[in-house]
Amino acid sequence: MSANTSDSIARELQAAPLETQVRAVHERAVTVSDLVRATRAAIRDHESALHAWVALSPDLEAEAASVGTDPGTHPMAGVSVGVKDLIDVAGLPTRAGSPTTSPDPAPEDAPCVSRLRKLGAVVQGKTITTEFGYFTPGPTTNPHAADHTPGGSSSGSAAAVGAGTIGLALGTQTAGSLTRPASYCGAAGMVLAHGAVDLKGVTGLSPSLDSLGMLTRTVEDLRWAHAAFCGPTARGAAEAAPPGRALLWDGSHLDTLDPAMTALLRRLPALLGRLDQDVAVLQWDDHVQSLAQDHATVMAHEAARSLEQEWERCRQDLGASLRKLLEQGREIPEAECTAALIRRDRSRQLLEEILTPPSYIVGPAALGPAPAGLAATGSPVLSRPWQLLGLPVVVVPGARTSSGLPLGVQVVGRPGREGQLLDIAHGLEHLLRQQPSIPD
Amino acid sequence: MSANTSDSIARELQAAPLETQVRAVHERAVTVSDLVRATRAAIRDHESALHAWVALSPDLEAEAASVGTDPGTHPMAGVSVGVKDLIDVAGLPTRAGSPTTSPDPAPEDAPCVSRLRKLGAVVQGKTITTEFGYFTPGPTTNPHAADHTPGGSSSGSAAAVGAGTIGLALGTQTAGSLTRPASYCGAAGMVLAHGAVDLKGVTGLSPSLDSLGMLTRTVEDLRWAHAAFCGPTARGAAEAAPPGRALLWDGSHLDTLDPAMTALLRRLPALLGRLDQDVAVLQWDDHVQSLAQDHATVMAHEAARSLEQEWERCRQDLGASLRKLLEQGREIPEAECTAALIRRDRSRQLLEEILTPPSYIVGPAALGPAPAGLAATGSPVLSRPWQLLGLPVVVVPGARTSSGLPLGVQVVGRPGREGQLLDIAHGLEHLLRQQPSIPD
Repeated sequence: MSANTSDSIARELQAAPLETQVRAVHERAVTVSDLVRATRAAIRDHESALHAWVALSPDLEAEAASVGTDPGTHPMAGVSVGVKDLIDVAGLPTRAGSPTTSPDPAPEDAPCVSRLRKLGAVVQGKTITTEFGYFTPGPTTNPHAADHTPGGSSSGSAAAVGAGTIGLALGTQTAGSLTRPASYCGAAGMVLAHGAVDLKGVTGLSPSLDSLGMLTRTVEDLRWAHAAFCGPTARGAAEAAPPGRALLWDGSHLDTLDPAMTALLRRLPALLGRLDQDVAVLQWDDHVQSLAQDHATVMAHEAARSLEQEWERCRQDLGASLRKLLEQGREIPEAECTAALIRRDRSRQLLEEILTPPSYIVGPAALGPAPAGLAATGSPVLSRPWQLLGLPVVVVPGARTSSGLPLGVQVVGRPGREGQLLDIAHGLEHLLRQQPSIPD
Repeated sequence: MSANTSDSIARELQAAPLETQVRAVHERAVTVSDLVRATRAAIRDHESALHAWVALSPDLEAEAASVGTDPGTHPMAGVSVGVKDLIDVAGLPTRAGSPTTSPDPAPEDAPCVSRLRKLGAVVQGKTITTEFGYFTPGPTTNPHAADHTPGGSSSGSAAAVGAGTIGLALGTQTAGSLTRPASYCGAAGMVLAHGAVDLKGVTGLSPSLDSLGMLTRTVEDLRWAHAAFCGPTARGAAEAAPPGRALLWDGSHLDTLDPAMTALLRRLPALLGRLDQDVAVLQWDDHVQSLAQDHATVMAHEAARSLEQEWERCRQDLGASLRKLLEQGREIPEAECTAALIRRDRSRQLLEEILTPPSYIVGPAALGPAPAGLAATGSPVLSRPWQLLGLPVVVVPGARTSSGLPLGVQVVGRPGREGQLLDIAHGLEHLLRQQPSIPD
């Protein structure tokens, strides 16, 4: 191919499905260099309004040149990835949304990043996070309405993916840190089961809760990226969702839902029916409520420990909301946290039964569309019970309000059932994108 | 030498005069690598309280390895330098204290940075600036009192030098952006004459006013760095100040001075006398007042032009003080700015006479010690008249209040008389350091 051809193909491919991008690299229809440069150009075009990035990788050309493109060993050859600024990338500082962190470049990639690189992915840069993954936001805006929050704490990752400038971004979740911004920004998202991957090199807030995840433009991309990153699930990528049993959960016992989200949930039984799914209602409200409370207890207690040094050294430089969390957490006795974790273990056993295959949970990924204003990042409450249980979660984009704000659905299941969750999510996304918008 | 020897020498040399450091490199008593690593360690030790750095250079080792150490061509071999984050450094983004700027790494060094590198200096990283060099501060604290402002806009450069973690930093000045933080942080500082160096690659606010400058721990270092960077002045470095004529200016017609600064100024005639200087009083108050006003007019008008794009694209993301400056600037007609610049030209002619060698001006570098609080960066008013005239300025450290806050003196003169200003400043610093502290 001529250099010009590769370049113009790259520009067309930049927004294409990840699998298509990689196939073009493997077939030498496009060079990795042209592909990542096209993505860099898209990032640049949106950044002045979006504020999604802390810093971009300085020598993209060299990184592109060093990427392997062997189809067997490099299934992600040429895929651009954004890395949440809680996760170490060699050569760039991990500022974690806080001036109290070191401006020193991280000496090495976090294992999750080096794994992506080994697979052929190219790191475009670090995406903005809220302060230590808690509530104090950075300058990132929502790609669908600049005066609305992108959500947090994976703000930059969700905004960049939701804007379409990048096809894959790493995020983390302690309390709705990935599912909520994915929902607000119209991105597909997946929180991996707790403990599924090594969190070394990832700035943590609460070891019992912190999980890694990824965001993509579509569930198709998510399914593809999950297979490349975690190994293929039992089912092939192209298959339709197998019959299963959806347990509907509306979360309204935890907080008031926005009417638009309630309207979306009303549509779900029919849509799930079209996917050959049985539909029942999750009968677990008391448990879920207690799980949400226990999540808050564990998070505050463990955050106070994780950020003990910052508290001692420079608490005056922490945002008000984080300082309050740490104050609360310091008052929570060890025994109270342990009791919460023991209740969690019992709930896990109960849930094993409830989620006997082929059952899974479907519910709202957030209380409603992204709230107006950039000073707050919205409520994480609908994530708390599932995050305490450490379950894998997939966020399904596709639904919109009539003013164009995205609404996400979360599909939650047992660890080990990721393939099913992704299949359901894939089918659901397809149907949601065909639906008329929901009046706000 | 053994590796261990070089390493332990490096740690001792880190805080030594720059000339001593370089001599040790030239004589192979220490390696550049050990020297810059010792500085990096000092930076790390202070950063969690100081917040002076945006990002540190990722591959210091490689940079150290590529530095030339030939005494003839590398007079700055091994000197660590901090670069204000308005100035481009290849591979690091120039964020200019604003989320509206690009996270893209700068493609190349600004000429002032590449000049330093050619001379053998090693860039340690980017130092925090206020938003576009105006008033909205970053998280930097004052090295002598963590709850006091370091001043702005060269906040990180002045704090890092004032804390002693680095011996040389680049700054810029539009309105007291270097002289004020140098004074507050107890650093020596020099604003080069307007137009003396190429400002390509430097994010500007007002082309008629923007100047480059540097900060060092002592005037001795400043004299040395100025000679290395700009070429030696007429006089040798070791000589005492020649007899001259100091024109005292107290600036009190521009704003109220803090009593501690007034007390310091009262000491100056005797100290200057001990340096064999004649002392007179600058009789130019009306002019200076009109120059300060004209400076504000030019700055607002030109800033509105310089940041026209940001205004159009994302004014809602600018800090309130900058937005107000731009609003004011947009209302100032071109003709008003031109008239101010014509008055400036006339004043320059008058000043030529007033500053006939060996005359120069000596006055306060700031209204007083660093004000308490981190939300504001103090007043730049005492810089305005001299900055409009484009004169070189040297800030002399050494004076302290009894609570340990530094007070700086500025020595201002004609372009071309830098050697004399530095000599005077050098003598004055020596005497100021011997003086008892000034009651606050």
